Amino acid sequence: MQIVVLRLGHRPERDKRITTHVGLVARAFGAEEMLLAGNDHNIELSLNEVVRRWGGDFHLKAGVNWKDETKLWKAGGGKIVHLTMYGSNLMDAMEHIRLCNKIMVVVGAEKVPAEVYNVADWNIAIGNQPHSEVAALAVFLDRLFQGKELMQEFGGNLKIVPSFKGKQVLGYADKI
Amino acid sequence: MQIVVLRLGHRPERDKRITTHVGLVARAFGAEEMLLAGNDHNIELSLNEVVRRWGGDFHLKAGVNWKDETKLWKAGGGKIVHLTMYGSNLMDAMEHIRLCNKIMVVVGAEKVPAEVYNVADWNIAIGNQPHSEVAALAVFLDRLFQGKELMQEFGGNLKIVPSFKGKQVLGYADKI
Repeated sequence: MQIVVLRLGHRPERDKRITTHVGLVARAFGAEEMLLAGNDHNIELSLNEVVRRWGGDFHLKAGVNWKDETKLWKAGGGKIVHLTMYGSNLMDAMEHIRLCNKIMVVVGAEKVPAEVYNVADWNIAIGNQPHSEVAALAVFLDRLFQGKELMQEFGGNLKIVPSFKGKQVLGYADKI
Repeated sequence: MQIVVLRLGHRPERDKRITTHVGLVARAFGAEEMLLAGNDHNIELSLNEVVRRWGGDFHLKAGVNWKDETKLWKAGGGKIVHLTMYGSNLMDAMEHIRLCNKIMVVVGAEKVPAEVYNVADWNIAIGNQPHSEVAALAVFLDRLFQGKELMQEFGGNLKIVPSFKGKQVLGYADKI
């Protein structure tokens, strides 16, 4: 299954770290790309550095036009899931979503244009309380892949050996 | 089961929004309190405003000393789970963690003191790739409560009616 994440409404000053976390979660939880409706050189640097050190082929495409991207995605047979606290219950839709080959997951910042609700095949809530697009994306992908996403191998220069206590990192000469 | 979240290493300028998201996730995913090792008036305002509008009795205790809090928690029979990318696999420990009545979930920022790894009963990784403490907390609580946390009723002034499209909010006169 091919997953891309579309991040809407990024405001460079305010959202720098949240959008970076959205990108890191996208990569770590099995997406292959993040499309960013906006430009932010710092986020590109951070995400590229993580890929260089930790592996995988996740990439960021910045400066996209969300309308063009969603149109193109649908024309290519992809489906769109918009994560929003106003949406339907996740588990009601999950069996249908799991049948798709290509899913674009849209996560917004505070204000999302009304057209996004219409272009989405599913508007899905990870609970109907205010929380975080970072959390919503992680829980959505975790439920979608049923935990298997956390077992992926990224083949990076750095690799952690899971430890009961302390830190063990392969490929890293110094202590972190 | 009683859950509190301890947020370490908060730097007001840099972490303001990430720590707010940690607090919102803590509340929405079933914790009753966030302890903040640091002070940040803006975060207190944001979280209190969410509780006032959306309900529940979640609260923030800022300016705590993490050593005192973890000692006190353990003295009261509580267990400590530290979420870290260096830790053991979540599912290996989950059956034991589920037997606890009181769990403190510790989430750090970039640097976490080595003593935290020792004071924790479990150092747990939500995958061993770099991502986000917001995501780690959400997935941990989602797995712990097996999705039931998202069905909680908060009894707030505002309540969302889950919708296939658009936004429906009870108790709110204006359109959001």
